[in-house]
Amino acid sequence: MMTLKAQTVLITGASRGLGLEYVKQLLMFDSVELLIATCRNPESESAVELLSIAKLNPVVKIVKLDVENDESLESAFQEVRHAVGESGLNLLISNAAIYDRSDSGGILVQSREKMQTHFNVNVTGPILLVQKFLPLLQQAAKSKSKDPLSCSTSGIVMMSSRVGSQNIAFNDGPEASLSLHYKCSKTALNMATILISREVQKDGILVFALHPGWVKTKMGTDRAPMYPCESIEKCLKVIAGAGEEIHGKLIDLNGEVIPF
Amino acid sequence: MMTLKAQTVLITGASRGLGLEYVKQLLMFDSVELLIATCRNPESESAVELLSIAKLNPVVKIVKLDVENDESLESAFQEVRHAVGESGLNLLISNAAIYDRSDSGGILVQSREKMQTHFNVNVTGPILLVQKFLPLLQQAAKSKSKDPLSCSTSGIVMMSSRVGSQNIAFNDGPEASLSLHYKCSKTALNMATILISREVQKDGILVFALHPGWVKTKMGTDRAPMYPCESIEKCLKVIAGAGEEIHGKLIDLNGEVIPF
Repeated sequence: MMTLKAQTVLITGASRGLGLEYVKQLLMFDSVELLIATCRNPESESAVELLSIAKLNPVVKIVKLDVENDESLESAFQEVRHAVGESGLNLLISNAAIYDRSDSGGILVQSREKMQTHFNVNVTGPILLVQKFLPLLQQAAKSKSKDPLSCSTSGIVMMSSRVGSQNIAFNDGPEASLSLHYKCSKTALNMATILISREVQKDGILVFALHPGWVKTKMGTDRAPMYPCESIEKCLKVIAGAGEEIHGKLIDLNGEVIPF
Repeated sequence: MMTLKAQTVLITGASRGLGLEYVKQLLMFDSVELLIATCRNPESESAVELLSIAKLNPVVKIVKLDVENDESLESAFQEVRHAVGESGLNLLISNAAIYDRSDSGGILVQSREKMQTHFNVNVTGPILLVQKFLPLLQQAAKSKSKDPLSCSTSGIVMMSSRVGSQNIAFNDGPEASLSLHYKCSKTALNMATILISREVQKDGILVFALHPGWVKTKMGTDRAPMYPCESIEKCLKVIAGAGEEIHGKLIDLNGEVIPF
């Protein structure tokens, strides 16, 4: 089995749910020397657990980052740039996302504000995140330009969902249109992943979208069949073993390709 | 060959380009008794040609509609509801869209404002347009619930693009990421088309996305290989013949299915 050898990792939305679980499990990798955990409000109640982890583990560096805000992206970038130094950033996990359950119906319940917020947080935010941190990923890939694509050298993981699959939606029944806002945003994110993968291939950066399954988090609710620890253990196996064969694709937590 | 028998048709973005060409050619169909041509600014210079067509053809009714604006959608709906009366609306062509060429590069040139505007006009707008006018389409389908799905009875045509195809993007080279904002918005629109098709199937409403080809318009530039008249002639043949077999799909102007 492949093991992850990334030295510097950045993950967004790290104060709860899958993001927090990523932090806990990434701490167990010997290779990781700097684990940048970003969240919108490090000062808030919701970040208490992340803060206590960071206190006990000097490898973890908490950085304030709101993907909905350009100034926040810029100031986070400056902070991270100094922290990683010459070696750059090996792995960027775009995990922050929203799913507003109050508009979880089909076309009749959609509102402009909610739809635009889903596009902003789930698509535009991740795209601008990659845009901003690309120089650090390029830096990490530069010295290893002859290595095969991998998340140990330089990789971008877009946390996405199988509900963004058009083929799966097409084969669904009338219930397909539930959560239309969320599904459209994840489809657009999967497209962005493809387009970015084409653009950064020349830089030696691996990019793919990852479906973590339906997980017991605030987003997934307790009706979900899986705990975060199980999902992220599998996600990290996929990330560790990921290579050129999944570049640009949407992969599930078992490493299977999900059709677009 | 099938012929279009829709009596009432609404088309957005009708003051120029493909929308204006749709108006010109739909006027030649004997069945069309009311052709509602909407545009953002009927008073502006850019609507002069549409206005002169409407003056000569009482079948054409111009309605002010900006898909970026909820109040505009509501007031257009009230106007159209009175105009179509009991028989409802047979055909809704969602044609208004933007493509900002100044950000036509890949990831590095994207800005939040432009991306969000593309999502708003090209995805959220069409979704809310369908949401708003759905009762009129249901009304038209109601009396003909045993007829096969068709645009003559009750249909929604989402003017989209093959550049929204994830499979096509995946098989592209580094140039795939050009116009990332536009491509992501069209992918999301194609997903919305699938989801809406699933939701309205029970109502007897046909929905599909249509790629008009690369056309000499303000959006397509004069480098495009085709004139609007040729594109729309073919699009109207597809619309006239469209049935259940393309429900939810993305179709090109020759009636061929484009993979998601």
